[in-house]
Amino acid sequence: MTAPDFHVAGLGNALVDVLAHADDDFLIAHGIEKGAMTLVDEAHATRVYSALGPTVQVSGGSLANATAGLASLGGKAAFIGKVRDDQLGMAFSHDIRALGVSFKTAAATQGPATGRCLIVVTPDAQRSMTTYLGAAQDLTPEDVDPETISRAAITFLEGYLWDPPGAKQAFVKAAKIAHDANRQVALTLSDSFCVDRYRTEFRQLVADEVDILFANEAEIMSLYEVDTFDAALQIVSGQAPVAALTRSAAGSVIVVNGEIHVVDAEMPTALVDTTGAGDQFAAGFLYGWATGRSPVDCARIGSICAAEVIAHMGPRPETSLADLVAARGL
Amino acid sequence: MTAPDFHVAGLGNALVDVLAHADDDFLIAHGIEKGAMTLVDEAHATRVYSALGPTVQVSGGSLANATAGLASLGGKAAFIGKVRDDQLGMAFSHDIRALGVSFKTAAATQGPATGRCLIVVTPDAQRSMTTYLGAAQDLTPEDVDPETISRAAITFLEGYLWDPPGAKQAFVKAAKIAHDANRQVALTLSDSFCVDRYRTEFRQLVADEVDILFANEAEIMSLYEVDTFDAALQIVSGQAPVAALTRSAAGSVIVVNGEIHVVDAEMPTALVDTTGAGDQFAAGFLYGWATGRSPVDCARIGSICAAEVIAHMGPRPETSLADLVAARGL
Repeated sequence: MTAPDFHVAGLGNALVDVLAHADDDFLIAHGIEKGAMTLVDEAHATRVYSALGPTVQVSGGSLANATAGLASLGGKAAFIGKVRDDQLGMAFSHDIRALGVSFKTAAATQGPATGRCLIVVTPDAQRSMTTYLGAAQDLTPEDVDPETISRAAITFLEGYLWDPPGAKQAFVKAAKIAHDANRQVALTLSDSFCVDRYRTEFRQLVADEVDILFANEAEIMSLYEVDTFDAALQIVSGQAPVAALTRSAAGSVIVVNGEIHVVDAEMPTALVDTTGAGDQFAAGFLYGWATGRSPVDCARIGSICAAEVIAHMGPRPETSLADLVAARGL
Repeated sequence: MTAPDFHVAGLGNALVDVLAHADDDFLIAHGIEKGAMTLVDEAHATRVYSALGPTVQVSGGSLANATAGLASLGGKAAFIGKVRDDQLGMAFSHDIRALGVSFKTAAATQGPATGRCLIVVTPDAQRSMTTYLGAAQDLTPEDVDPETISRAAITFLEGYLWDPPGAKQAFVKAAKIAHDANRQVALTLSDSFCVDRYRTEFRQLVADEVDILFANEAEIMSLYEVDTFDAALQIVSGQAPVAALTRSAAGSVIVVNGEIHVVDAEMPTALVDTTGAGDQFAAGFLYGWATGRSPVDCARIGSICAAEVIAHMGPRPETSLADLVAARGL
């Protein structure tokens, strides 16, 4: 096995985030599930957008955010995902490449526009997402470049990929290439409603395919249909070789081959917008893992990255994560 | 004369701002004049964009920003400007309408894409702009709705409008409609390089057409080709009925019918990005003027608005200017 060229190759839905502030009444009036990601069609997305106040547009997409974080940590990352050759797609491509992330997936030249994630940030800094997948629906197995996957220490996949049918097949193909090349496969469960949609498949993936699992409390409890975090913890510790379970301000719990570690959260300097917190935790953890840190240090790095992104609007770091981590002696 | 329905009608280039952080070496490498606005063609804009780091896209355009500020102050504003019917144009239209600004100019259905202003923010919070006017070049006198202009207490025009040929004619038409309806005409000189391009015309406008003039130190000194601010002040006080001259941290100097007032600046809570500072000062001043405040109070309101926008990235207020002004007892 040759040394990998990338710490992480991420495969995910390529989306542009459209961020706006609103209160809880807005969520209720538009039937938006607080804290969750709801898939909608283009007409529905347009209705919600029309009702929003002024917006900020920044590149997003959970796995793309994670590769952006990895680049900010000084790591080498690749991203595979589908945009259209429109203004939003060009902005997405520019932004991720500007960070030094390798992004070679061909943009669609026809079909739906680049996907958008309308993110309502409420005064408690919680984010609630209404997503129109757009061109992300057109990701196919042909977009999975075997060379990129086999050159990455870790291939990182998102549960959200089970929503677009072709993307699911791309997911399966990428996992197989990674394992055939003796690399590791990481998965984030993405969202508790996403887990509801694909519980059986996700349980099987965690038991059979996943080397490193990321989930928050709601997601891991949904996966095993249990009422307490501890009950989910006891089950997952016998299923996944590595599980990094995030608990917001309560920190994280890391399981490595059945050994459990409880790690404190890094407190953000301000509580502005939780968009991207999970993505940046995963970026930090995977960067630590790919560079041989201890499980606890991986979680500490992840927590520093999450704290940075919570302190401002938008899902990607605005300051050098490498500097922040170095300042903590990690 | 009936009471006006709008405090301000703004006519200006409709642009989407593309913001990125970079250092002074980036400006030098790309021949960008620090602190200024440089007009470029699409190919040049694409070259600069390609070299930029990750970006944030927000609606901009100097006069559009001012009408946004006016709405945030609780005022009634209208905006006239040209976008294309593309993704950026739709975002521009959404954002300004979401603030409650009346925006009825028909989007172009052919021709250049919506205009973009690439804004490099250096570590000293200074902004340097590279602008591709795009669809803003297609603003014509037909876009100037006489009803909107005649219903506004103040018609606010920008020097930048002299760059696109049709826009200049739109400027002249709007000023005539406003004066014929016994309304006031305000002008911002926009940028010292813009003053260089149109000095003769701008001097004549200030002497003959403008009721309220906005300029910063560099612009007013360029207008009269003098080496000191005071020299420019002495000249302009005999030319424009009202001149609001901004001096960054040194505050502002207001001239009303030859009477001079010197007003302190409001200090921002953080020095992040000066984009939009002049626009928001003008918004605050004009809101004060249209609601009958004293010249000094107009300047104080303007300064509070400028301080808000300097404390974050982007050219439009992120918090209610009405609340900030009320908190200061104004």
